[in-house]
Amino acid sequence: MKIIKKIEEMRSWSGEQCGKGLTIGFVPTMGALHRGHLALVKLSQSKTDITVVSIFVNPTQFGPQEDFNAYPRQFESDSEKLQKENVDVLFAPTTDDMYGSEFQTSISVKEVSKGLCGEFRPGHFQGVATVVLKLFNIVRPQVAVFGEKDYQQLLVIKHMVGDLNLDVNIVSHPIVRDSDGLALSSRNVRLSQEEKKEALIIPATLARAQEFFNKGEREIAKILTACAEFIDREGSLNLQYLEIRDALTLKSISKIERKAVVLLAAHVGNVRLIDNCILGSDHETSN
Amino acid sequence: MKIIKKIEEMRSWSGEQCGKGLTIGFVPTMGALHRGHLALVKLSQSKTDITVVSIFVNPTQFGPQEDFNAYPRQFESDSEKLQKENVDVLFAPTTDDMYGSEFQTSISVKEVSKGLCGEFRPGHFQGVATVVLKLFNIVRPQVAVFGEKDYQQLLVIKHMVGDLNLDVNIVSHPIVRDSDGLALSSRNVRLSQEEKKEALIIPATLARAQEFFNKGEREIAKILTACAEFIDREGSLNLQYLEIRDALTLKSISKIERKAVVLLAAHVGNVRLIDNCILGSDHETSN
Repeated sequence: MKIIKKIEEMRSWSGEQCGKGLTIGFVPTMGALHRGHLALVKLSQSKTDITVVSIFVNPTQFGPQEDFNAYPRQFESDSEKLQKENVDVLFAPTTDDMYGSEFQTSISVKEVSKGLCGEFRPGHFQGVATVVLKLFNIVRPQVAVFGEKDYQQLLVIKHMVGDLNLDVNIVSHPIVRDSDGLALSSRNVRLSQEEKKEALIIPATLARAQEFFNKGEREIAKILTACAEFIDREGSLNLQYLEIRDALTLKSISKIERKAVVLLAAHVGNVRLIDNCILGSDHETSN
Repeated sequence: MKIIKKIEEMRSWSGEQCGKGLTIGFVPTMGALHRGHLALVKLSQSKTDITVVSIFVNPTQFGPQEDFNAYPRQFESDSEKLQKENVDVLFAPTTDDMYGSEFQTSISVKEVSKGLCGEFRPGHFQGVATVVLKLFNIVRPQVAVFGEKDYQQLLVIKHMVGDLNLDVNIVSHPIVRDSDGLALSSRNVRLSQEEKKEALIIPATLARAQEFFNKGEREIAKILTACAEFIDREGSLNLQYLEIRDALTLKSISKIERKAVVLLAAHVGNVRLIDNCILGSDHETSN
């Protein structure tokens, strides 16, 4: 596995592969890799000749009160994991190389960034869209793979790609969960054993919504009331939001008439966790 | 000359040229072509194998009170002019193809968009940056040529290209003027003969600044006072702004210590005109 830290080197390497007619798959990450990330890598490898994984903890997508400094960093073990998966290139640029002192450009994807994490993390999706566009321009992939856990992020990226006429196929991978149901997240390492148990109310709440939907309930208000009652009965949860929205546009809806998504964000201890589940017949959310 | 109106056709055509190892030069325009545009075409042709010119009157860079509807449109004669210059492709997308109903993405290049036209045309440079990025992604040029008359626009594009790691070389061409000194602009066709004469105070004012600079004056305030006195003496001018700024960053300065630019916007009749001139030893403003 080749480790590249300089933007110019990454760019010229990707130019060479393109010249050889090889297709590039790309998995952008912030490191602290878990099985969820490795599933994205495998999906990329199944679709392209070469897979590039980036590790970059992007400062511009963290708010001033957020956990940029506390975000787990473990480059050596990440690098070993990617090596074992036969990743071709690990791209790990420095912050100075990504954002020079005169940096002043940002991308907004307005509608899908509204509400949900966009409300609780102002500027977050601008930071995400901007860094992802930069990485696309440097790595020049034909395919890029994102996890569905960050569902709103996935839609921000898909809309950006369509709106800006980017020649990248965005592929998503379903949420990978621990055996107990907790969605894998780099932030889980910051949970104590007890908090990990407490956090299980998150997937259980989503399962409750799924159960009501499967029984034929289509009124959003009724499903959400059932979820709230479930949370009250089972314990407590420091919720930021629990909403059901249209799965393709993220627009607010009152009744489920096509594929929808239940989205949840909550704090467990000091750690902010997000999770979601799709309600509807087809799981695929690709363009 | 090939005329392409569909984004997908343009994209696949540019992909083919890339596969053949041919370099693409690109001149984005809003049509109503004059000798200034044709000079950009010649510059592109001198640098690349193939030249693509786009004609697209981009609605998102016009404010609600601006001249989007009045902007001159003359596709047939434009097309003939480009044919005569041996342009390879004329790309003329429709507004619907460029901006679907779900379009929601925009690019901001914050610092260089501040003040000047950015102040008098809110949203203008977001519209410009966004459409230019879209066109770059569709046409995929190695070189793109812009006129220096739209000086702030040129810097917005250059900063966007650097910040987003785009693989496009931005080349600029000096302002092309009529024999009487008026900078060529598509909007000049909307001036009456009398207004055309009135408009000559614009290049004359810039010449006055140049003259003071050549005599050794470096204090911005003194040069601007001399320009204001000149305007008062010679007639009148419905000025929006007359400023001198750092030529590379567009930052405000009080004294000229390196290359600077005098920038002017004014209304003559109903027509808004802009012009500028560089103060300093090297004329080139390329990256």
